[in-house]
Amino acid sequence: MKVSAIVVAAGNGTRMRTDKKKPYMDIAGEPLLVRTLRAIESSPLVREIVLVVGEEDLNEAKLLVDQYGIRRVTRYAAGGIERQDSVRNGLEALDSAPDLVVVHDGARPFVTAEEMERVIQAAADCGAAIIGTPVKDTIKRVSNGLVQETIPRNDLYSVQTPQAFRTQLLREAHEKAARNGFRGTDDASLVEWTGHPVKIVEGSYRNIKITTPEDLVVAEAFLQKDR
Amino acid sequence: MKVSAIVVAAGNGTRMRTDKKKPYMDIAGEPLLVRTLRAIESSPLVREIVLVVGEEDLNEAKLLVDQYGIRRVTRYAAGGIERQDSVRNGLEALDSAPDLVVVHDGARPFVTAEEMERVIQAAADCGAAIIGTPVKDTIKRVSNGLVQETIPRNDLYSVQTPQAFRTQLLREAHEKAARNGFRGTDDASLVEWTGHPVKIVEGSYRNIKITTPEDLVVAEAFLQKDR
Repeated sequence: MKVSAIVVAAGNGTRMRTDKKKPYMDIAGEPLLVRTLRAIESSPLVREIVLVVGEEDLNEAKLLVDQYGIRRVTRYAAGGIERQDSVRNGLEALDSAPDLVVVHDGARPFVTAEEMERVIQAAADCGAAIIGTPVKDTIKRVSNGLVQETIPRNDLYSVQTPQAFRTQLLREAHEKAARNGFRGTDDASLVEWTGHPVKIVEGSYRNIKITTPEDLVVAEAFLQKDR
Repeated sequence: MKVSAIVVAAGNGTRMRTDKKKPYMDIAGEPLLVRTLRAIESSPLVREIVLVVGEEDLNEAKLLVDQYGIRRVTRYAAGGIERQDSVRNGLEALDSAPDLVVVHDGARPFVTAEEMERVIQAAADCGAAIIGTPVKDTIKRVSNGLVQETIPRNDLYSVQTPQAFRTQLLREAHEKAARNGFRGTDDASLVEWTGHPVKIVEGSYRNIKITTPEDLVVAEAFLQKDR
């Protein structure tokens, strides 16, 4: 079973309020993107990594990968207008025939090899699987600053990456979505929209996406704790 | 305008996997509950605090309040079977006539005086207001381990406490809910269910509820950062 990963690090990170772009920011002495790529490499199942970065950051990304010796990054793709376009570009840059593809956010450095394995295994079984955790907070729909409804919580999951798919299934979902102008906030939503079932694999509350200054503080605390 | 607070610290904290009950655990040298009570006291608007704790913890709670000199805790109430029952007991223990009541989780020590003021002001205006933040992750409804749907995210809020209400409104909502066996995961959901509008006041991603061991690490990091 051949598995490739697409790591998406093309966001502009506007919520971080810093000059340095998010993937290249240091967390406890190492760039965020390097930490994420190492986490992916910790899974022996992933043979190659396609790294998707902003076109203007391509040189910096290649330097980082070289400097830190991330061997499994073998291809690069340019980021698109939205995340969905970036993943699509990553799919086009893939080596021709992996059986499965795992999409992962460049800003989630805490994914473990064990989580990678479980999501890949579940996708091998049923075609599509994603990591998620039960929602802890109460979730409400809001309009014009007023609550419209409280959404029953007991079957809600907050979903993350990695998200793993049979390559052909994800490719077809992206192509169909592009043809129909369908937009989703994650890859699974495109696959769901084609009617194919998507499995949930229980993840960890540690697998945060680093998007705000608060998240940076949290990430450094997790890393210190691990030392 | 007279404002009272009900601080709910009656949960058993089973997700924390420790012997010590959550409210009495130390965070960077001080009990979680003390930190939360101090945060509430930092708002000059709150005149009295009713502290709701497990019946068996009443003595420990009183000792803490005394030892740390939390002057505005003037009344205690015993926790009920679920959170909703605990708040109801808190309402019964209130001084007879505050205009507004603010309900807050004992495990949210990072609320600020400024957030308290905004939510109280909004409740004074429209009767009911709660703190919330826009949802960052993709949320899905899951059944039997399979995704049922992706919930459109752009109008979703993850809501927290403080939640502030005209006292009479919250009392009536709790009484009506008790009569009808209606259960909600927060106080606002009871008020919504009676048909009264609830305002959202934008909060901060720092205002976390400490429920898991990961949250403890995060809380200590926030405190260190603030020093």
